[in-house]
Amino acid sequence: MTDCDHDCESCGIEDCGDEAKNFNIFRAYLNKESSVKKVIGVVSGKGGVGKSLVTSLLAVEASRRGKKTAILDADITGPSIPKAFGITGRVVPQGEYIKPCTSEGGIDVMSLNLALDNESDPVIWRGPMIASVVKQFWTDTVWDREDVMFVDMPPGTGDVTLTVFQSLPVAGLVVVTSPQDLVGMIVEKAMKMANLMDIPVFGIVENMSYMRCPGCGEILRPFGESKVEGLAKKYGIKLTAQMPIDPEFAKTVDEGKIESIAENPLSDFAAALL
Amino acid sequence: MTDCDHDCESCGIEDCGDEAKNFNIFRAYLNKESSVKKVIGVVSGKGGVGKSLVTSLLAVEASRRGKKTAILDADITGPSIPKAFGITGRVVPQGEYIKPCTSEGGIDVMSLNLALDNESDPVIWRGPMIASVVKQFWTDTVWDREDVMFVDMPPGTGDVTLTVFQSLPVAGLVVVTSPQDLVGMIVEKAMKMANLMDIPVFGIVENMSYMRCPGCGEILRPFGESKVEGLAKKYGIKLTAQMPIDPEFAKTVDEGKIESIAENPLSDFAAALL
Repeated sequence: MTDCDHDCESCGIEDCGDEAKNFNIFRAYLNKESSVKKVIGVVSGKGGVGKSLVTSLLAVEASRRGKKTAILDADITGPSIPKAFGITGRVVPQGEYIKPCTSEGGIDVMSLNLALDNESDPVIWRGPMIASVVKQFWTDTVWDREDVMFVDMPPGTGDVTLTVFQSLPVAGLVVVTSPQDLVGMIVEKAMKMANLMDIPVFGIVENMSYMRCPGCGEILRPFGESKVEGLAKKYGIKLTAQMPIDPEFAKTVDEGKIESIAENPLSDFAAALL
Repeated sequence: MTDCDHDCESCGIEDCGDEAKNFNIFRAYLNKESSVKKVIGVVSGKGGVGKSLVTSLLAVEASRRGKKTAILDADITGPSIPKAFGITGRVVPQGEYIKPCTSEGGIDVMSLNLALDNESDPVIWRGPMIASVVKQFWTDTVWDREDVMFVDMPPGTGDVTLTVFQSLPVAGLVVVTSPQDLVGMIVEKAMKMANLMDIPVFGIVENMSYMRCPGCGEILRPFGESKVEGLAKKYGIKLTAQMPIDPEFAKTVDEGKIESIAENPLSDFAAALL
């Protein structure tokens, strides 16, 4: 089945086994130079809870643990990944496909900002156009023997989320939330969408759970008490993590040095995930 | 021109004056029971910077200053406005149109969550569908002699933002940002989109600029130094405001009591805006 082009109409083979069984009209397929063992989506429903930070930290940890790691930045209108990794290059063609940019630590990254002349230029496109670009990131990029790929999803349950869930073989999701009730409500929308589409939720990360005052050491909870255990229990999720608000994180991301982070707050979470 | 149905083909009048001159094929028109004097969009590009909080605080202030105020919640997949105002009712038909819900303080609100059976149900729709619902919120809701309407836009520069900019008579924008570089980059995308579409930016609100430790009183800047003045200067914007991280805000929103906020941090900003 190595020559399968997934065009069943032009194929004479009657029983092609698993490949046909798993064939799905919505599914997008990798090109012949690519392989990705496991795809994990990072979703939130609500924007700004730190989805890209979580994606980056998980990828950094996977890479540190010897996995060949990739990030597909599906947040087309608000792409954050290249900046966190300090990638300022641009993607280039490789044969008929596109070569992703590679971070200092060896993580392959595909993001729309790597194809724009100016990173602050807006992308003013309708949803189907945006969704088709995400699909192309999957099909037309050379993903060279990746052990794991993290997909940084845009906020909300719209086009791109739907397209990724339908087109990519997503093994499961990491859901990112924050202690605010309001955020919890919107994160639940994402959890329910995952359930509707039969995609398992591997774990929940609560970001901005607390912070420590550098002056007096007091633990502050500016966004309220943690709610991650309640949410996890409600949906039967075992794997959870809490992350503090840490000015170092913001600084590390702003400086593009996420890979040089000394203590990864998601180290244990990532180990359990992988 | 009171009977103008904006269908120029069926109209015999040769020179209909201003109305025809301002006619625009993308423009959506209010129904005959509605009037809105001024529409202000609240945008950010990046999610989670507090756009809905800013929208709510501006509306509360406008209402306190005697303006008949409305909010159109255009964040269809992540609607936050009803929760902030503690509105748990559902919208109901009024003749051939829809009656918005009204807050305790008298602010008219239209949001998709006011039409769902369960506020945490996800809306899994493609972009054009979402955009058409936003347009209907404008055309099919009874907006009863509103002095000002704030439109809470979804993050990003996609379908809905484009639709609102094209279809509604947006007088200008309030841009919401936070001190992170990364956020600044994505907020610039929104500023450039506004420029491309000839919509003025009235002012910039930087949220999460700082917080005060309740233990020792120290001023903390967990997301880095303020960057609002630099951004304002770059784009020639005169009106700016900074908002602290305040656990009271999160609590007030979570409890649906935004209208009972004692000191509105955007009081002066709103006064200048209106």
